[in-house]
This record gives sequence, C-alpha cells and structure tokens, in this order.
Amino acid sequence: MGVALTLAERTRGRTAPNPNVGCVIVHDGRMVGRGWTQSGGRPHAEAAALAQAGERARGATAYVTLEPCAHVSTRGPACSDLLVASGVARVVIALTDPDPRTNGQGIARLRAAGIDVVCDVRADDAARSMAGFLKRRALGRPFVTLKLALSLDGAVSRADGQSQWITGPQARAHGHLERSRHEAILVGRGTAEIDRPALNVRLPGLAERSPQRVVLSADSAALDGFAMLSSIDALASLSGDHVLVEGGAATAAAFLRADVVDRLLLYRAPILIGHGRTLPDIGLPDLAQAHGRWRLYDARMLGSDRLEVYERVRIGR
Amino acid sequence: MGVALTLAERTRGRTAPNPNVGCVIVHDGRMVGRGWTQSGGRPHAEAAALAQAGERARGATAYVTLEPCAHVSTRGPACSDLLVASGVARVVIALTDPDPRTNGQGIARLRAAGIDVVCDVRADDAARSMAGFLKRRALGRPFVTLKLALSLDGAVSRADGQSQWITGPQARAHGHLERSRHEAILVGRGTAEIDRPALNVRLPGLAERSPQRVVLSADSAALDGFAMLSSIDALASLSGDHVLVEGGAATAAAFLRADVVDRLLLYRAPILIGHGRTLPDIGLPDLAQAHGRWRLYDARMLGSDRLEVYERVRIGR
Repeated sequence: MGVALTLAERTRGRTAPNPNVGCVIVHDGRMVGRGWTQSGGRPHAEAAALAQAGERARGATAYVTLEPCAHVSTRGPACSDLLVASGVARVVIALTDPDPRTNGQGIARLRAAGIDVVCDVRADDAARSMAGFLKRRALGRPFVTLKLALSLDGAVSRADGQSQWITGPQARAHGHLERSRHEAILVGRGTAEIDRPALNVRLPGLAERSPQRVVLSADSAALDGFAMLSSIDALASLSGDHVLVEGGAATAAAFLRADVVDRLLLYRAPILIGHGRTLPDIGLPDLAQAHGRWRLYDARMLGSDRLEVYERVRIGR
Repeated sequence: MGVALTLAERTRGRTAPNPNVGCVIVHDGRMVGRGWTQSGGRPHAEAAALAQAGERARGATAYVTLEPCAHVSTRGPACSDLLVASGVARVVIALTDPDPRTNGQGIARLRAAGIDVVCDVRADDAARSMAGFLKRRALGRPFVTLKLALSLDGAVSRADGQSQWITGPQARAHGHLERSRHEAILVGRGTAEIDRPALNVRLPGLAERSPQRVVLSADSAALDGFAMLSSIDALASLSGDHVLVEGGAATAAAFLRADVVDRLLLYRAPILIGHGRTLPDIGLPDLAQAHGRWRLYDARMLGSDRLEVYERVRIGR
C-alpha cells in the first residue's frame, strides 16, 4: 500500500474532479503492475495497473488507495468490473469511496465475484493523499494549503517588504514541488501587483505543471495572467481541488479568519529579523481558543531551514 | 566522558567563578568514583570522585571535563596533585583549562608523574557545558541565554499583552529547569512591573535554586525583589556566569541589538495568534546579514510544543 500511496502522489493536483489514486498488483511476491490516475482523471489507476499486469493478474493481490469504482462512464469501464474480469484473488483497499455512485458498491461487486476484500489499510494516509477530492466532496470547495516562509521570530518579510531571501534554495525548491501538486496558486492583489511573482514551477521537467494563478481581490480590474477571485466566499467556484495560498500576510490572515485553511506549510529559516511583517489579525477571540486547532504531521530539514506541515484538527467549513 | 558531562550539569549556574566540572573514575570497567564541582565552586569534581574511589583509584582511568587544576588554593589542593597521589594510570580530558594558572600545566604535571594523558575528547560538548565560565574568561561578561515562548507566527503575546498560556505545562516546566541553571534571570521594567512575575523555580526539590532577579532599567528607582542593571553595557557587572533573559520583547530585542546573546531557547507552540506582539527592531541592516548567525544544536518535543536551542556562530562581544 505504501507503493500505491507513493504512485498516487504523481498526479496530485492534476486529476480533478477525479481523485488521485494509486494501484499495485502483486503476484507471488512480485510487483506485476503499477498504475495511477492519469492527468485529467483517466485512465484510472486500476485500469493502468491491470493493463500492465495482463495475464499475471490472475490469482494476484491488488492494492488500491481508494475503493474501485462501480459506475460505468463513457470514458471507461468500472474498475471493479475490470478487477473481477482480471481474475485477481484479493483486493486490499485503503479508503472507501465517498462518491454515492460507488460508496460500498465497488466492494460489494468484488465480493459477489468471490474476491477476498480487505478495507481500511492506511486509510488515514490515503485520506491525506486524496484530501482535495475528499474536501470537494464534503464541503464543495477545494482543499486549501497556506504556505509561509518565515524567520524564527515569525517575519515573512522585513518591514520594508524585503523577503528575498528568508529561506534557502532547498526550501524554495520544495515550495516549487508543492506548487506542482496544486491546480491553483493564489496571492493577494498587493503581492500580485508589487512583487509580480512568476508563481510557476521552476524545477527541471516540471515547468509544464505550473498551476493556474489566481488573485484574491475585491477590485475586479483584470490583472494580466491571473484569474480573479472576488471573495473567499467564492472559493468553491475555483476549478481544481487544491489551492495553494502563497501570500502576502494579509491574504494569509484573511483565509485563516475565514476558517478555510486545511493545511499549513511552514518553511522556517534559522534567522531573526526583528520588526518584520508578521501575520495580522486572524480573528482570534482569546488565547485559549488558539490551541487544539493544528496538528503537526510532517517535518523535515531542508538545508538549514525546517519544513513543518500542520493539518487542521477539525473538518472546517 | 558522557557521564562526566552529565554530572557537570548538576551545578551549572552554581559554581561561579569556578567552572562546573564533572569527573568519573573507572577501574577495570567499573565506575568507582563520580564527582562534580559543588555549589560555590568547591570541592572540585576530581577531589570528590577520588574521595569516593579511595584505593580503587590506583591504576584506574579518570575522565574529567576540564584539565585538572595545577594551582594550590587556600580552599583545597591542586587536582593534578591529587590525581598523581591517587595512583591513577590514565587521565582523559575534554577541554584544556584557559585559566592562566593552569593552562597546560595540569597536563604537564600529570605526564611528569608518568600518567597517560589523552586530551580533546568531546571538547565541543565540554565547552557548551562550561559556556558561562569560558565566556567570562574570554569576554569578561556572563553567558547570555535569551528565552522566548512563542506561537508559529512568532507572537510572544497577544496585542493586548495576554501570554498565558502560549506553551503547555511541559514546556513551562522545562523553562523552570533552565532557570535553575542560571545565576540570574533578567526582565525589562515593563515585565517586572506589570506582570510581576515570580521568576522562581517552581519545580519539586529545586525551589531553593531560584536565581537572582534582575531588572534592566535606565530608571534607577528600586523595584522590590529585583537587582538593577542600568544598561546592557554594564552586563559584566552582574555576578554569576549565566544570565537568562526572559522578556519582554523589547528587552529581548535590546540584547540582540547589543549583540550579546549567546544562546536562544525557543519554545514554540503549535498555534497561530495573528496581530501578536513580536520581536521589535534588532538593528538588522539587511536580510542577507540575518543569515549564518545561529546554529541549531538541540531540539525536542515538550508535549505538543517544540524546544529549539540555537547557539551563536561567532564569539560575540
């Protein structure tokens, strides 16, 4: 399942409205097929993995990060039917599909055909992997990641706006990799106009995966190269299931105030700035209420900087 | 040497003007004596360890975190003489003593007596352990640790001053343990007057180790229970070799601006505050010059908070 989850990451941010799924077929301890949802959402992971496995799928075990679909589409057959036809003996599933067209029916179809089905294997990891798809299903809006590059004292720039550079090249490269996993990057009007950030993916081989650029602005005057979002209330109207909010501090605070941030990506440099720009008002009524909202779930060093990834504890709105 | 370094921590902040040293005597793989500099600076670590070992010191190896002293004091004999008299066969030393009365002479006396001497074993760790003693020797002033308890966005309190609580009970207990390792705790006048912090060690068994309370204030009006420091320029006048600067943000910034902070103790809670009080101007001329000043050398989780300890890269002034 670990391999299937890793494969699923390959097209995170490229499969909406479909989920990014990973699938591995194992026969007699050998991996005979690997697949992941392709850009645009088709083919599905299982179809790709089964095509690679061919006859070797017979009697094999399929590991898949999401319950195989039970609905036939004009774009392809139902994966549960494909698995039955392939002759696999066992299917291990991380997460049940919340799509009402499948929700348990994929599993039922597999079991009716005599296939041994195991569920809830690394379900939490699969839910993180498909967080965009699940958030859209649950709340109708994309999954929002807020990225901040900051100093030990919380400054995202000097008071005069200078922010190049707080973090080092490895942290910035990781930030570009994260961009490639999002359909949209959002900034405030100030950042878009003054800094005119390229907001593209400047990594070898990933340049074509630069996401759509969106500016949050009540002012509807067009900004070259940017799609417009008039208000956070209209967040659901954005296409794609993953939005990366990249700044500035006022825009970050607006998203936090609206309680629609699902994940924090903090790149912290081992420097002190002093009198820097920090996060403005996020509408916190009391210090006690600041607690219990964020849970650290990943951290690593990137050169001398430290990346911390937090997820919201409650589901949000 | 690891055990000797751990023993040396027992009286950190209690031995000035003497260094806090640790010593272990090992005979045939068995630890036969342990010692550390006692409160007030005497007896020395070696004297205590040798007293415990007695006759078992003959032929043994002594591990000591600092070169044994070569000078006789009215308060006790020279440790190098004690080691020679004990009959130890080998002495392993972490750090050479910068005290001109010893500096190499302790080692010379041991070698002249036919004892095998090994130096520079975990010298960096020993230098950290005796940082207060070494800073006083090198620069004439105490070693300064700046403690900050802050949120992910760098706030040390809400804008209205509320700071109870940002960090949890485990981080606060660790802060009290750190207090017990300092001769003095220093705060600004505002913190001293408004918050009237107890600034004592509220840990079972360590209450009597509460350090002297010092207030940094240009205003010489006395403040009950506090010693006065009129200016950071007078830092060297403080007694003791370890000062813990506990706030507020303006005082922290003043010490950073004066470039006399040797160590940062950052307790960071997994919360966002927004529009909080953060570090004011520290006199940074340019973002590029913020880099390369601090090196992370210890980090751990304390409940859901994270402690990071940074040391300054250059020696300071």
